[in-house]
Amino acid sequence: MAKRVKPAILKGTRDYLPPDSVRREYIIGKLKGIFRKYGFDPLETPSIELWETLGGKYGEDAEMLIYRFKDHGGRDVGLRYDLTVPLSRVIAMHPEIPKPFKRYQIAPVWRADSPQKGRYREFYQCDFDIVGSTSLMADAEIIAIVYESLASLGFKKFTIKVNSRKVVRGLIETAGIDIEKEHETARIIDKLDKIGVEGVLKELSDKGYKSDAIAKIEKIISTHFDSNEEAIAFGEEFFKDSVAGVAGINELTDLLEFLQILGVPEEFVKIDLSLARGLDYYTGPIYEAVLEDVSLPSVSGGGRYDNLIKIFSGRDLPATGGSLGLERIYQGLVDLNLLPDSLKTHTHVLVTVFNKKFLKESAKLAARLRDEGLNVDLYLGKKNLRAQLGYASDKGIRFAIFYGPDEMEAGVVTLKDLTKETQNQVKIEEVARVIKGEINGD
Amino acid sequence: MAKRVKPAILKGTRDYLPPDSVRREYIIGKLKGIFRKYGFDPLETPSIELWETLGGKYGEDAEMLIYRFKDHGGRDVGLRYDLTVPLSRVIAMHPEIPKPFKRYQIAPVWRADSPQKGRYREFYQCDFDIVGSTSLMADAEIIAIVYESLASLGFKKFTIKVNSRKVVRGLIETAGIDIEKEHETARIIDKLDKIGVEGVLKELSDKGYKSDAIAKIEKIISTHFDSNEEAIAFGEEFFKDSVAGVAGINELTDLLEFLQILGVPEEFVKIDLSLARGLDYYTGPIYEAVLEDVSLPSVSGGGRYDNLIKIFSGRDLPATGGSLGLERIYQGLVDLNLLPDSLKTHTHVLVTVFNKKFLKESAKLAARLRDEGLNVDLYLGKKNLRAQLGYASDKGIRFAIFYGPDEMEAGVVTLKDLTKETQNQVKIEEVARVIKGEINGD
Repeated sequence: MAKRVKPAILKGTRDYLPPDSVRREYIIGKLKGIFRKYGFDPLETPSIELWETLGGKYGEDAEMLIYRFKDHGGRDVGLRYDLTVPLSRVIAMHPEIPKPFKRYQIAPVWRADSPQKGRYREFYQCDFDIVGSTSLMADAEIIAIVYESLASLGFKKFTIKVNSRKVVRGLIETAGIDIEKEHETARIIDKLDKIGVEGVLKELSDKGYKSDAIAKIEKIISTHFDSNEEAIAFGEEFFKDSVAGVAGINELTDLLEFLQILGVPEEFVKIDLSLARGLDYYTGPIYEAVLEDVSLPSVSGGGRYDNLIKIFSGRDLPATGGSLGLERIYQGLVDLNLLPDSLKTHTHVLVTVFNKKFLKESAKLAARLRDEGLNVDLYLGKKNLRAQLGYASDKGIRFAIFYGPDEMEAGVVTLKDLTKETQNQVKIEEVARVIKGEINGD
Repeated sequence: MAKRVKPAILKGTRDYLPPDSVRREYIIGKLKGIFRKYGFDPLETPSIELWETLGGKYGEDAEMLIYRFKDHGGRDVGLRYDLTVPLSRVIAMHPEIPKPFKRYQIAPVWRADSPQKGRYREFYQCDFDIVGSTSLMADAEIIAIVYESLASLGFKKFTIKVNSRKVVRGLIETAGIDIEKEHETARIIDKLDKIGVEGVLKELSDKGYKSDAIAKIEKIISTHFDSNEEAIAFGEEFFKDSVAGVAGINELTDLLEFLQILGVPEEFVKIDLSLARGLDYYTGPIYEAVLEDVSLPSVSGGGRYDNLIKIFSGRDLPATGGSLGLERIYQGLVDLNLLPDSLKTHTHVLVTVFNKKFLKESAKLAARLRDEGLNVDLYLGKKNLRAQLGYASDKGIRFAIFYGPDEMEAGVVTLKDLTKETQNQVKIEEVARVIKGEINGD
């Protein structure tokens, strides 16, 4: 065997122990439930992709962050950077997939980023995309999923900011900026949250944008609206001479109606004409969701990308989708104290062992309770009953059962509720029912 | 945007599309249910580990298969090879974890193997381990989990072969082989399934084992027993002069009793005194599970490894555990036709769209049915009703709803059951109830 090594973990990666891991499973379960509710099925893709799949898709800066290496056959490969490019590859490789294709994928992605608060080298994306539909109802469903996901997890206050890349193009047209600079302009405006209005204007000026153009952009990024109607009315006027701008505002108007049809309450959706999103590939509606009352970056973002899949398949295939960030959602739930207290372990009850001689009897009891539908931990250490109770408490197990000589003779167990701090004698045949009643009655 | 690329995937890796991905989720759900039933909680570890964690743990041949590369800071790292070594690292880094620690982890591992039938470069392991217990009841729980996992998935015929590394050591002692050669001998015997009795004997002879020793080994690997009692009786006699051998046989006797207490039917467990397991780190009970009536390698294996964690923590910490192979289980279920026919999609019903003008009405209906607890796909393509029905059929969606002008006027929908090939008019307020009744009545 090997010599002793100091145990360590790569910076920017993490272990998730219970109760964190239990809570992550809970969140993932909720999200899957919502995705399925909207008619989505899962897709799994490998972590390792060929370099020709990953390269040239994300822009230079992002590409630097891909973990790239040679496999044992000398092939140039990398760990996936997101779940969108692998989806596009799958779509191109499998033309037989019925379309529209609604898929979710909840999986880690890797980025060789410098680890800092909230930035990790391995983290989970929860993606949901609709491929093969040009319908604005598809975009509306994506945003409805974001709303339902956050609402079902217990978030009460959040905003889904919505815009369209057509509006961004309308701004380029209205401001008289060269259409070649569309992506550059979008990327600068995308920094608004980080560097503020002044910062954006300065960068535009530094990059040589004309003062007329800068004034137009300033108007869009510094005007605040009290309602979506106001934003739409402003947009209709502002963009009236731009074909793309008019199309964008019409798109937003229809989108609001569709969201209402799908049951998304209006107060959670906010037209934000300054929303640009950093990635080059967006073509239509775009969105970003931010939690209120917490200091966190956006927990979800996405939009329509009608041209990305063409790179792989050679033919047009419209697509729209979104992504929820598991780690940020988790942080939001913790910061707002929204996780159920009982969410520490899957185990319902610990069956203690009176002493070594009683192990078999306790094991029989554990087997019985498992068959009756409970998640049962049988204590397998060497400590005394008091310490066993401490073990249950440390793990967050709510119930503990004592089954010693007195109980055995009477055909009962002593059932301790560690949350309520109560203790009762219960007939063996009724234990499972009593525990289930307490758990479900919570 | 990038130029067009031919979409391709790294050999030895796979995409899982629906219905495969739906079925994989089903299997994972079943396994998690069993793990939790036995008091296990989840643990997640990163895919990338520092090289000092991975190196020197698996033996030379295995180590060659680790995907190893430099991260962007020049650190020597690799993709995890299994889930046992990362568990050991976590245990050493987190002494605060209450023990015994029962954890499961269902996650991919990577091996730079040459892809061939059933060998993949990225595949899932479903691991369950108990750390911090010397109790044989812990080993019994591990084997009980294997039994329950396979039984709950519908497998009717399988064998869990059980032995103890103490028996293997007993064989070394009884055969008068140098104790230094214990691991080598175990690895040669481990090839029994592949190269047969003759092959094992030849390799022992080639390696210079004495003929007396070879005769003893031949006796163990070529004797067949009609029952576990017979195997135990044989072992008691055969190993009577070896301390380790006697301890091993006693361990197996107790293990059989404990398995009975935990409710594992005797016919699924078979004492196999020739079972050796390839890995060096086993110290006590070992097991392997094989499905009958299919040609597949073992679907599960594991055992007690009391010294592995010490490499990281510097102190003794007993452990026992097992691993179920997701891909092989899936293959077994497919080969034996054990997967439910309906297991193709999570979606219960497709709401069709009569024509573009009716999209909003269909969307309203879809939203309503979702709120009433159904998983609903709203058709978002451009094809006619007949093609929409084909889409539902291709995806394996059982129900389709037609909601055209006639239905709207009558306040009903036309509900088509694609499995039963029936079609009925149902009042809107009863659709959800009717569909749920059909699904649950199956």
